[in-house]
Amino acid sequence: MSSLPPFSALQTARMNYKPLVPEILNQLKSIKFHADFLVKEEKKSQEGIAKLFPHTYFQPFLSLKSGLQKNSSSLKIGVLFSGGQAPGGHNVVAGILDALLELNKESELIGFLNGPEGLINSQYKQITLESLFTYRNQGGFDLLGSGRTKIESKQQIQAAIQTVSSLNLDGLVIIGGDDSNTNSAFLAEAFEREKVKTCVVGVPKTIDGDLKNEQIEISFGYDTACKTYSEIIGNLAKDALSAKKYYFFVKMMGRSASHIALECAVKTQINMVVIGEEIAALKMSLDEVVKQIANLICKRADADKYYGVILIPEGIVEFIEEFKQMIQEVNQLDCLKNVQKTDLDQVKEALSSKSVDCLTHLPDSFQKQLLLERDCHGNVQVSKIEIERLLIDLVQKELITRSQFKDSIHKFSPQPFFCGYEGRSAFPSNFDSNYCYALGKSAALLIESKANGYLATISGLGLPVEKWAVSGTPIAQMLHFENRKGEKKAVIQKGLVDLDGKIFQFYQQQKERWAIEDNYQVPGPIQFQGDLDLTDAPPLILKSF
Amino acid sequence: MSSLPPFSALQTARMNYKPLVPEILNQLKSIKFHADFLVKEEKKSQEGIAKLFPHTYFQPFLSLKSGLQKNSSSLKIGVLFSGGQAPGGHNVVAGILDALLELNKESELIGFLNGPEGLINSQYKQITLESLFTYRNQGGFDLLGSGRTKIESKQQIQAAIQTVSSLNLDGLVIIGGDDSNTNSAFLAEAFEREKVKTCVVGVPKTIDGDLKNEQIEISFGYDTACKTYSEIIGNLAKDALSAKKYYFFVKMMGRSASHIALECAVKTQINMVVIGEEIAALKMSLDEVVKQIANLICKRADADKYYGVILIPEGIVEFIEEFKQMIQEVNQLDCLKNVQKTDLDQVKEALSSKSVDCLTHLPDSFQKQLLLERDCHGNVQVSKIEIERLLIDLVQKELITRSQFKDSIHKFSPQPFFCGYEGRSAFPSNFDSNYCYALGKSAALLIESKANGYLATISGLGLPVEKWAVSGTPIAQMLHFENRKGEKKAVIQKGLVDLDGKIFQFYQQQKERWAIEDNYQVPGPIQFQGDLDLTDAPPLILKSF
Repeated sequence: MSSLPPFSALQTARMNYKPLVPEILNQLKSIKFHADFLVKEEKKSQEGIAKLFPHTYFQPFLSLKSGLQKNSSSLKIGVLFSGGQAPGGHNVVAGILDALLELNKESELIGFLNGPEGLINSQYKQITLESLFTYRNQGGFDLLGSGRTKIESKQQIQAAIQTVSSLNLDGLVIIGGDDSNTNSAFLAEAFEREKVKTCVVGVPKTIDGDLKNEQIEISFGYDTACKTYSEIIGNLAKDALSAKKYYFFVKMMGRSASHIALECAVKTQINMVVIGEEIAALKMSLDEVVKQIANLICKRADADKYYGVILIPEGIVEFIEEFKQMIQEVNQLDCLKNVQKTDLDQVKEALSSKSVDCLTHLPDSFQKQLLLERDCHGNVQVSKIEIERLLIDLVQKELITRSQFKDSIHKFSPQPFFCGYEGRSAFPSNFDSNYCYALGKSAALLIESKANGYLATISGLGLPVEKWAVSGTPIAQMLHFENRKGEKKAVIQKGLVDLDGKIFQFYQQQKERWAIEDNYQVPGPIQFQGDLDLTDAPPLILKSF
Repeated sequence: MSSLPPFSALQTARMNYKPLVPEILNQLKSIKFHADFLVKEEKKSQEGIAKLFPHTYFQPFLSLKSGLQKNSSSLKIGVLFSGGQAPGGHNVVAGILDALLELNKESELIGFLNGPEGLINSQYKQITLESLFTYRNQGGFDLLGSGRTKIESKQQIQAAIQTVSSLNLDGLVIIGGDDSNTNSAFLAEAFEREKVKTCVVGVPKTIDGDLKNEQIEISFGYDTACKTYSEIIGNLAKDALSAKKYYFFVKMMGRSASHIALECAVKTQINMVVIGEEIAALKMSLDEVVKQIANLICKRADADKYYGVILIPEGIVEFIEEFKQMIQEVNQLDCLKNVQKTDLDQVKEALSSKSVDCLTHLPDSFQKQLLLERDCHGNVQVSKIEIERLLIDLVQKELITRSQFKDSIHKFSPQPFFCGYEGRSAFPSNFDSNYCYALGKSAALLIESKANGYLATISGLGLPVEKWAVSGTPIAQMLHFENRKGEKKAVIQKGLVDLDGKIFQFYQQQKERWAIEDNYQVPGPIQFQGDLDLTDAPPLILKSF
């Protein structure tokens, strides 16, 4: 019996895909970063940040422009993945390597293993054209692995300095989300302060879409994750419409922000999406969210429709005030720390009456889950709350009280679903393949320009690839102060869903219709070959509508 | 603000896809079904079946051959979907319509609504080229809807006769699985007995792959469902390998048989798949299954691997003798019928000691789920048992006893996942699009040949489409007797995984290696354009290895 080939047909096809490249990146030897503008005072919202970054805050915004032919000396760069996977990471590495070699054949790229830990422990491997080939345009971060270690303490920073110095690195590229890039900013500042020659450059990674601001149109990975989830959701909608008997309650990965859920809702035009940011703006209680969902279901029942699809961002509990409060109180209960089993009544005595109210409204199993399943610090694990199942439970209880269901609750047939890990490591879409490859090239060029503490940023992402513009943004200027666990910390501000933004407004206009009509769109699986509108469409968050 | 186009880019692209057609079906006006061979005695395993089908059992096997140009009179055919969705159903309808119109432009096709119920209640709609266009090569059964009503009682059969007679139908095509086609056989016999002119023709539909025998190489929908699930599983494997911290326990839809799980396991080369048919052959207990999984996890832990992917067919409980027995006993407990809450101890008193043993080994929540969540007949809903969560629970308990985990159970980080509904209504792969279109044409031709009680069957599916052969098989000859709820019933025998078959044997050869090495393959999303090996590959179950 023969074995199967070592790679799937698509893996092989994708290894051979040549990403489209913005025109400006076509001839690396005749382009250069130019200072675009220099902010001379810090923004009010950032008061105090500049003091933390005496060397790297007041740096100019850079943009890439064509110029005279240049001679490039060889460079040695290190790269690492930080945090959860996002489709396209391998193409960032490919972009760096290809740019390095185009600039000077003697250049070298090394990859740190298992995330920031590899930098601290000086664990790395050489990345060559040959060793990289089978990872081009592939999902996952398995070329190097990743990790969630933060480089924050003095010792960690010293270890990092030790590593980059002994390796004599010209640059270090950190591929990470908001927290990882906050780290990049501090590391860059430390390097500058300690006169380490290595330039730190960040690349905006996260499927969640919350690393988003004036300079970052969207982080990489978001497009692929949303398209992967939308394939599934579209199929579920088609299934609901065909069998006419299920309600799919789909929890969407994406941490606090509701970007992914909103993008997928508009892509698939399902019946309802709960938006955390809207819940917060309207100060809705959990009970009100439940009633809103029940209203939808009853309205559809009136039209003899006992099926539908509802999307629920995993982070919505953080936007429900009473719930957030209750979790905070529970986290502070000493009686729960380091215990396996606790008397529920004892816990309730220690909570405020509001939180007791919130807690006792939850089904027993969720009360137990909340109180007993804690992380190693004794905290409630918000991301583990199975919000889709909780809502099914609560909606069911609500429906029994409604005329449409009180004698026929069996007509409500809910199915929980979770769109999660399968979207983080998917094959990057052409959009993410191209975007990441350009980000990698840009990061290499920033290092060539000796830019330290910069994020590689690309704009015009809604336009055809050749028109994309490349810039470099001082990361420190993206930071502001936040309260984290009682401490004031300088961090990159998360970009939440803008309720005045185009995509949310579009949803607002359509939602009454989508709730009751079955306007489902079925995006289907990501395509890599065919017409450009089928294969290369940018995410809707970039669309003008 | 503009609205979005009414269909996704892929929906539009697929509407315009022209399925590849077997050479024999190229010129419908010069081909004819010929009697291939006639079975003159019933098989031993079918003793008594022929008596139930005096008119339709001893009919010849038919095969399609080219011949002289013929004149075809116009035909009127009705079609319906029966049971759960399978990708490609709409193409069966397209194949019927296109064949009908090619044979005679005056022909007509009507579709019965919401499955067999539409036939009984005479609810239908005309299907025209125009009304069908947007459903070509699309997933779901939403053109007509489907349903699980069985046409079994005398009244139901009379109602069906009433409908087809008053519509003056030449033929009725039933697109269904094993049970639905069992119904087709009885309906055909009744039509013949009552001298109704309508010919009943079945089309083998089910993603489960269990409608499979000498004549049926594979049912339609299986290929797409497996490819859709394999996309997800491959992504999860890539994610496991990148983050190196999760064990994905993936429950696979597919009813009793383990075909889907096995096909997906070989496609993705994940670490382990539990095969129900093997459990039964080895007479394994639930405890042994749990230990086997724990062994795998410990072996990987010895190699410092704390991640992996394990597939679990949803039907395995039916293959675990003690579990099956326990469920049967529970189903017979009068004390549970029509009650909302029951004292667990009271239940246990009524069960055999073996079943009590089996029940009490389960976590509390599963005990309750089993006993309290029953269908309308008071039966345990096997398909609702969350076997992936049950196994996670039991494996965790087992791992605590193992040296690798006893002080570090937090290193076992399991994630449940269910591959289910999203695969049933996916866009049909090119394979299923082509297959179903050919099945539809074949069904129309069978009716043109006045074949009654036949299943449209296509062979050579592992070969290029042009070489596929078309035949017609008397459905009654696929039946045998089974005990169903204490009654002896004539049904189509389910095709389970053949432990001596090629695909299982291939898995057996590889499994030690796949268990410990990370040989994951990532099939990625189904592709519709590009090289044929990327877009049109048949399922592995057809492969010779």
